[in-house]
Amino acid sequence: MTSGFDTGLPSSRQIQAMIKEQKQVEVKLISGETLNGLIRWQDQFCIGVVDENNESSIVWRHAIAYVKPK
Amino acid sequence: MTSGFDTGLPSSRQIQAMIKEQKQVEVKLISGETLNGLIRWQDQFCIGVVDENNESSIVWRHAIAYVKPK
Amino acid sequence: MTSGFDTGLPSSRQIQAMIKEQKQVEVKLISGETLNGLIRWQDQFCIGVVDENNESSIVWRHAIAYVKPK
Amino acid sequence: MTSGFDTGLPSSRQIQAMIKEQKQVEVKLISGETLNGLIRWQDQFCIGVVDENNESSIVWRHAIAYVKPK
Amino acid sequence: MTSGFDTGLPSSRQIQAMIKEQKQVEVKLISGETLNGLIRWQDQFCIGVVDENNESSIVWRHAIAYVKPK
Amino acid sequence: MTSGFDTGLPSSRQIQAMIKEQKQVEVKLISGETLNGLIRWQDQFCIGVVDENNESSIVWRHAIAYVKPK
Repeated sequence: MTSGFDTGLPSSRQIQAMIKEQKQVEVKLISGETLNGLIRWQDQFCIGVVDENNESSIVWRHAIAYVKPK
Repeated sequence: MTSGFDTGLPSSRQIQAMIKEQKQVEVKLISGETLNGLIRWQDQFCIGVVDENNESSIVWRHAIAYVKPK
Repeated sequence: MTSGFDTGLPSSRQIQAMIKEQKQVEVKLISGETLNGLIRWQDQFCIGVVDENNESSIVWRHAIAYVKPK
Repeated sequence: MTSGFDTGLPSSRQIQAMIKEQKQVEVKLISGETLNGLIRWQDQFCIGVVDENNESSIVWRHAIAYVKPK
Repeated sequence: MTSGFDTGLPSSRQIQAMIKEQKQVEVKLISGETLNGLIRWQDQFCIGVVDENNESSIVWRHAIAYVKPK
Repeated sequence: MTSGFDTGLPSSRQIQAMIKEQKQVEVKLISGETLNGLIRWQDQFCIGVVDENNESSIVWRHAIAYVKPK
């Protein structure tokens, strides 16, 4: 598993906290594109992001460069 | 498995719902290219997309940045 | 295995059908480059493409974004 | 595991030293983007970076090209 | 193993034939860059390429889009 | 393991020889960027490069396209 998650890891726990606290985040992709919004869920391969227009995206972990609270 | 799927995961179930409900989606690739159409099937490595011109593509999961209903 | 294949998967079976039926396909790479031609074979890591000039390429699955019949 | 870490590896130990010594580092991503700051933690999939504006990012290892002390 | 090789696979055998027959090849990378030369060896992660200037490179399989005889 | 190393592989042995002989090398990344310098160490995920300015970088194997002695 390359980009998976394990609930005990700092990265997974921090994302879980962002979900719980409904934090506005910036999700920067390896293509350079930025998604802004809230993270709603995470699983082994993807995270769910809801943007300013209330549109939901399934974002693949392998495409994410970094996540940063705003 | 990096980009695989497991029918119990939120990401897999949401894509399965998009297939069943024949939702128009935007499939954004890590190259920046966008495919618009319906998702017809998914397997461990790929998803099948049918575009506006009724053309079918086999799209590799490793190349997908995100999928977003339209 | 990230980009492998399993003869039972829809993606593998569709590519196998393209090989058998000698379908003209477009192979779009994650770099944005497009290869046009026939798929001659597939294995776990690569597919073999013969282009319009009858030149054969060994194309790595990890570099493919999508395959689309023409 | 592609981009994981093992506390016994030179790469993991050097990053651990950067965390402990609070070294200013440059984190160069495969997209060409550079993050400047301190590394706060590392796990199997990610490292935590705090930048000049005291903003924290979760950076995926798969997106990192290199890390260089400044 | 994502980009590995297995001596029984068509892709590995074709590259082995290119090595044996000292075929001039074009190695196209996912970055768009092209290396021209002869393949000297292959292992699980890399291939060895000697270019027109008789310079040797260790090329990672994960960075290769395709290999094409010239 | 995608980009790992095994001391018995030609690629690992050649890099080990470059370390021992303190060869000037060019490390070309998949982003197109080039690092010039000496390789100091390698592990399963990374190699250590010291450049002309005597600055050390931890370079991830997954980001390397090729290594070429100068």
